[in-house]
Parts: sequence; structure tokens; C-alpha cells
Amino acid sequence: MIVSGRLGEGDLLGREPELVERFGVSRPSLREALRILEADGLITVLRGVHGGVIAHRPDQRMTARTGSLVLRARNVSLADAFEARALLEPLAVRAIAARRHRRTAIAELRALVDRQEETIEDLERFAVANARFHERLVALGGNRTLAVVVEMLNEIVVRSIAAVGDTGDGAGSPATRRLGLRSQRRLVELLEAGDPAAEGYWREHMTAVGRVMLGQEASRVVDLLVRDA
Amino acid sequence: MIVSGRLGEGDLLGREPELVERFGVSRPSLREALRILEADGLITVLRGVHGGVIAHRPDQRMTARTGSLVLRARNVSLADAFEARALLEPLAVRAIAARRHRRTAIAELRALVDRQEETIEDLERFAVANARFHERLVALGGNRTLAVVVEMLNEIVVRSIAAVGDTGDGAGSPATRRLGLRSQRRLVELLEAGDPAAEGYWREHMTAVGRVMLGQEASRVVDLLVRDA
Repeated sequence: MIVSGRLGEGDLLGREPELVERFGVSRPSLREALRILEADGLITVLRGVHGGVIAHRPDQRMTARTGSLVLRARNVSLADAFEARALLEPLAVRAIAARRHRRTAIAELRALVDRQEETIEDLERFAVANARFHERLVALGGNRTLAVVVEMLNEIVVRSIAAVGDTGDGAGSPATRRLGLRSQRRLVELLEAGDPAAEGYWREHMTAVGRVMLGQEASRVVDLLVRDA
Repeated sequence: MIVSGRLGEGDLLGREPELVERFGVSRPSLREALRILEADGLITVLRGVHGGVIAHRPDQRMTARTGSLVLRARNVSLADAFEARALLEPLAVRAIAARRHRRTAIAELRALVDRQEETIEDLERFAVANARFHERLVALGGNRTLAVVVEMLNEIVVRSIAAVGDTGDGAGSPATRRLGLRSQRRLVELLEAGDPAAEGYWREHMTAVGRVMLGQEASRVVDLLVRDA
């Protein structure tokens, strides 16, 4: 129900006694099923008087969890995971640059750069605005599977960096952030002109960002600090 | 332990009473934990006299499961998932073509085409040899995260097609397969020559393969027929 979209994020599935009746299963069987769905991130079970089972739509937290388990099992480095991002985003850039009708996309991207500019002094809000730019850039490329993959990789990279407790902020100083925005504006111009060079330009930009963002953690193995199963 | 590689695929973790003692937990708590790990695909619990808990290394079955849940929740089509493959494999092709030392890679790819040629009349063996070619092609590209992503997408596409019970074999007739192998040989030649056209050539090939393979199922939503959570 959750997966096929009949239930939305945060919908109340019901309380335990109701669910036992509705699915015609025993209480222990229900609990076991709920535990598995909770481990998958598909539901949250709230205890207490106001308790109940809350549904979640599957999202990048879920794919990041399993993705990072596989990457970790193969000793894949953070630098490798970031390089994948630097390879994938330019595919969306190529698709946008080659498209005939792209004015709406360009206007949206420009607004998303402006939004980052406004929040440049506030690291937390800037991080949100910046993530939104990258997310929409890939979505505007048109392939939705690629968008899901990039969201997964972003989540893995950002959370892996957070997990090593690196306080050296990945987004750098306001000055570094300003340089980043200048690159984004240049990208938007190339996209607007339909310049095929946009793809290569963005690949180089992402590669440079990766070097700054990862710093000394580049060779560290991907790890979200999930349970050590 | 499984994830960090201290346990290999198929290793026996132990039997229930041993595990209760080893982790110092109650029997119901252990069972709950085992149920969750089993749902994740990290272990198999074998019942009976010769029973016990078997460890599995995390692999593409795991990422395909969560990936397909997210794709399905967003109503993403099989054609979209296949298009992502057609976008990603050429990235590996570009990397190989641009590399200075690529003789070993070329020799391996050539051997993998020969292997498919030998099995061309046997659909099952051909499918294995063909999957191996695509898997190694991406791995030889050098980015290991990308390899994990492509394995996930292959698993999703192949299992989604199997789930709709399509008996029209995706690999086509032996004649179609021969055409496919001809394209692969052409790709290997372009790679050997270090021709930058290899990337675009392979993108067009993959797009054409997608059309043949998906046929009427192209617009169907990704679905591995997992439990309807």
C-alpha cells in the first residue's frame, strides 16, 4: 500500500489492535511484520496513548542504507562514490543542453542559484538550497531513475562525511561558496546557449568540488555508521 | 561483521542457542533481530537438525529491492530504468577508451564476447555470459560505485521483466543475439583504437537493445513483485 502510493508520507496506518483485526493475523505475527517494515524505514511505530503506525514513502534514506552496505562490503572509498556523482550529474546537463524547449528549466535553475546566494552566510540553509539545486538539475535532465540514483549517492556521501564527525564544513567558507555559485551561473549560461561544452564544464566543476569537500577523508571507506550486521 | 567483510558469503554464523549465548540476548530478541537481517537479505535461517544461520555478503539483490521500491513509489517506467543503463554504461566506455594502458582490458572484453559466441544457442548460458560482459565492461571503467549502481539497475530491469512473466525472451532469437555480438566486437575495436566515438556508439547500441528487450512492457512501472508493503 505504501509502495504503490495508496498511502502518503506520514499517514496513520492504525493502532496495533485495529491492524490485528484488519489483517487477520496474530499479535506476535503482526509485531514481527511491523519490526521488519520499521527496519526497512517504511513505517515508524509510535508507542504510548497517542501511538500508532505511521507510513513513510520509500526514499533515498532507504536506498542509501542498502547502497552503503554494498559499497562498504567492497571497501569502496568516499572519493569513488563522489566521483560517481561527478560522472552522473553531467549526463543531466547534456540532456538539458540538447533539449529544444528549455526556457522553463533555465529559469528554475537561475532561481535556485539566487536562492543559494540569499542564504550564503547561513551554512544550514545554504546546504538545503544547494542540495535542492543539484537535485533539480538532475531531475530536469529527464531520466527519473538517474535522479533516484543521484539522490542515493548524495545521501551516502553527505552522511558518510557527517559520520566521521568532520567539522571542517564540506561547503567551505562563504568565499568558497561564492566561487561555487559563480560556476553554477556559468553552467546556466552554457545551458541557455545550448552549448555542448556544458557537460564537460560541469564534470570538471564537480571533480573540483569533490576534492575540496572530501579533503583528507577521500580514501575513507563509505560508512553510514549503520548497525554492524 | 557481514558488512565489514569479517564474514564471507555462505559462512555459518552458528545455531540459535549458540547465538543467544554469544550475544547475551533473550531468545525472542535474537529471533526478532534474525528476522530483520533475513528480510534485509543479510542472512538465511535454516531450520531443522542441520539448521543454523548463514551469512550473505550484501549485493545487488539488496540494492535492487530498495531501489525498486523507490522507483515504484514514483511510478517510474521500465523504459526509464533501462535508459539509465544506456546512459551509465557509456561512461565506463569513455573511461576505458581514454586510458593509456588498456591492452589487458581489451583482451578480457574480447574473451567475454567469444564466450557469448560459444553459448549463443543456449539461452540460459548465453544470458549469464552476456550479463558478465556488461558487468565487466562497467567494472573496467574503474569507478566501483558506478559498477554497484549498474548491477542494481540490471537486477531491477531483468527481474521486472521476469515478474511480468514475459516469455518473449529479452535476448531475442540467436540471430538477434548475433547482431548484438557484432556490436560488441565493433565496440571492442573502437576501444582498442582509443576512439572517443566509442562512448556514443555504445549509447546508441544500448538504446536499441532497450527497445528490443522491453517491447510492449516499456511503459510498465518497475516492480519486482516484492511484498506489497
